[in-house]
Amino acid sequence: MPVSRASDINRRSLLAILAALPSLSGGVFPAAVRAQAVTAGSALASWNDGPARQAISEFVRATTDRASPNYVPPEDRIAVFDQDGTLWVEHPLYTQVVYCLERVPAVVANKPELRDVEPFKTVLSGDREAIARLPLPDLEKILVVTLTGMSVDDFNAEVKKWIATARHPRWQRPYTELVYQPMLEVLHHLRDVGYKTYIVTGGGQDFVRVYAQQVYGIPPEQVVGTAGATTFSYDRDGKPILTKDAKLLLNDDKAGKPEGIHLMIGRRPYAAFGNSTGDREMLEWTGAGAGTRLRMLVLHDDATREFAYGPAQGLPDTKVGSFTQALYDEAKKDGWTVISMKNDWKRIFAFD
Amino acid sequence: MPVSRASDINRRSLLAILAALPSLSGGVFPAAVRAQAVTAGSALASWNDGPARQAISEFVRATTDRASPNYVPPEDRIAVFDQDGTLWVEHPLYTQVVYCLERVPAVVANKPELRDVEPFKTVLSGDREAIARLPLPDLEKILVVTLTGMSVDDFNAEVKKWIATARHPRWQRPYTELVYQPMLEVLHHLRDVGYKTYIVTGGGQDFVRVYAQQVYGIPPEQVVGTAGATTFSYDRDGKPILTKDAKLLLNDDKAGKPEGIHLMIGRRPYAAFGNSTGDREMLEWTGAGAGTRLRMLVLHDDATREFAYGPAQGLPDTKVGSFTQALYDEAKKDGWTVISMKNDWKRIFAFD
Repeated sequence: MPVSRASDINRRSLLAILAALPSLSGGVFPAAVRAQAVTAGSALASWNDGPARQAISEFVRATTDRASPNYVPPEDRIAVFDQDGTLWVEHPLYTQVVYCLERVPAVVANKPELRDVEPFKTVLSGDREAIARLPLPDLEKILVVTLTGMSVDDFNAEVKKWIATARHPRWQRPYTELVYQPMLEVLHHLRDVGYKTYIVTGGGQDFVRVYAQQVYGIPPEQVVGTAGATTFSYDRDGKPILTKDAKLLLNDDKAGKPEGIHLMIGRRPYAAFGNSTGDREMLEWTGAGAGTRLRMLVLHDDATREFAYGPAQGLPDTKVGSFTQALYDEAKKDGWTVISMKNDWKRIFAFD
Repeated sequence: MPVSRASDINRRSLLAILAALPSLSGGVFPAAVRAQAVTAGSALASWNDGPARQAISEFVRATTDRASPNYVPPEDRIAVFDQDGTLWVEHPLYTQVVYCLERVPAVVANKPELRDVEPFKTVLSGDREAIARLPLPDLEKILVVTLTGMSVDDFNAEVKKWIATARHPRWQRPYTELVYQPMLEVLHHLRDVGYKTYIVTGGGQDFVRVYAQQVYGIPPEQVVGTAGATTFSYDRDGKPILTKDAKLLLNDDKAGKPEGIHLMIGRRPYAAFGNSTGDREMLEWTGAGAGTRLRMLVLHDDATREFAYGPAQGLPDTKVGSFTQALYDEAKKDGWTVISMKNDWKRIFAFD
């Protein structure tokens, strides 16, 4: 359960998305955003020439050219990517939080005793202002009841069904189409030159694993995220089942990201991509290794094509995916590369 | 820390290995046991023809032949292997426990306050009978102090150094040479036909990851094991470090094996290999999926070439790597395949 991330939720953002949420998500099964074939010459076709694109190209050269002093053997090539705000849109609300809110009616239908209990009563009321005012412990209750207590197979099936039909309120498109085309190109390019690409997300590991192969070309076992315990038991027919527990095993945010990388991957990445203070320790851990390391931060500075938030806008640190001035200063001081969505990206989405 | 496995340690076995342990492991750097090139025709060259070899071949045919009704797409091909007693020798003591006992002098040198404290005093005394009589909580203290409290980099370096020089008391060879050649062939064969091979061990995840690539051709991220938490912090120079904590995250034994598979892999394997009651739930979980699933158990019935223990010998359940009569009965009832080391394997080790 990404409980700690809930503290980053901006109330006005929550209100905005609640106002825009359909009572039932649209019924059209969306075309999947699939990996586009990338030829060597057009590997980063959606990137403008500039320091960000050059940093990626130089990293690839330095670590894959056998003549380079910082050559990295193929088996050691690991690259990690935050998801929300780095690979896809995180505004106005994390997609997984939308899922949890929309799951409440189904959960209550199975557990009628929750109908008149807060915070479920408020969520069911449809009073968006009241929902937006729910205190954090109530939001955590919503996450727990919608993300745990079912078998892993049932959870996977529910998320798969939802992600196929849910729509983002601004674009009225499936969330799975709101991935950044330039970042898809980085994923493909790094894989083409032998890097194993991982998602390292503060979001729920089980949630992201449902669609990561389809959307990013990343298999379930290469998704590291906030993870709860499961319990093995047998159902009435004696068949083994795994049930999702409310016990947190890994809070994969901030210091939890390098800890999660050690647990799930067991070695230090050579490249790390993020967009917020939640990614700071992951980039520091990546950079503390020897040789050439690539550390990049996506700066959301394009209010027209996507959203603008972070230090350029002087928004407060509590904003979703906060990119603080302190993070910006650390990036500049330590040679991390800041990606300007406005200046570095020719287009944001595949449908642009 | 594989604390729960400690309960499986047989006291007489502990005594036997303690009697045979060199005070310092030999100084010759061993040749690594490397993957041997396997041609298609000789994929399982060390296997006698019989039901075990046929079960493997039939599984490969059923899941990789496109014309098969139980064809499995390459991206879904996952195979999991227990380590101790399944891939390499576990008698008379788990290799990792030997490591922990041999690390005690170095730990005490750094923490002199432990010198006169039990159980370290007894371990340092060299009184092998007294060491063998140490109660379980004392053994756990030894595991905690030798496996946690240091940086992950320091731990990796120590294990790497030790595994290169330590010798098994019976064969006077590096533990890394005591891998079963027929099982190496299964690993290679399954990889050759598109399976991703994982170790799923009750032993320490960080320990096994140090040598898994060299010994089994399995990269660190494909080793699932008993895992403790780590803590991210900064050293005196401001450099990020990860420190191994005594807090257990995953006890990867028995029911913990399918739970660990879900945490680290996120989907159900098609093939699972084990040799003890610690592998039962993993094989059950594997078998509960649709289509063709391979479940195999290594039976140690070759006292001449390796060891004999388990139901055929009527040994008690507390034996290391216990293969109980109940497990044998479940295997027969549910169509798992029991591998007889004596009858199914032409040779046990590469050096045979």
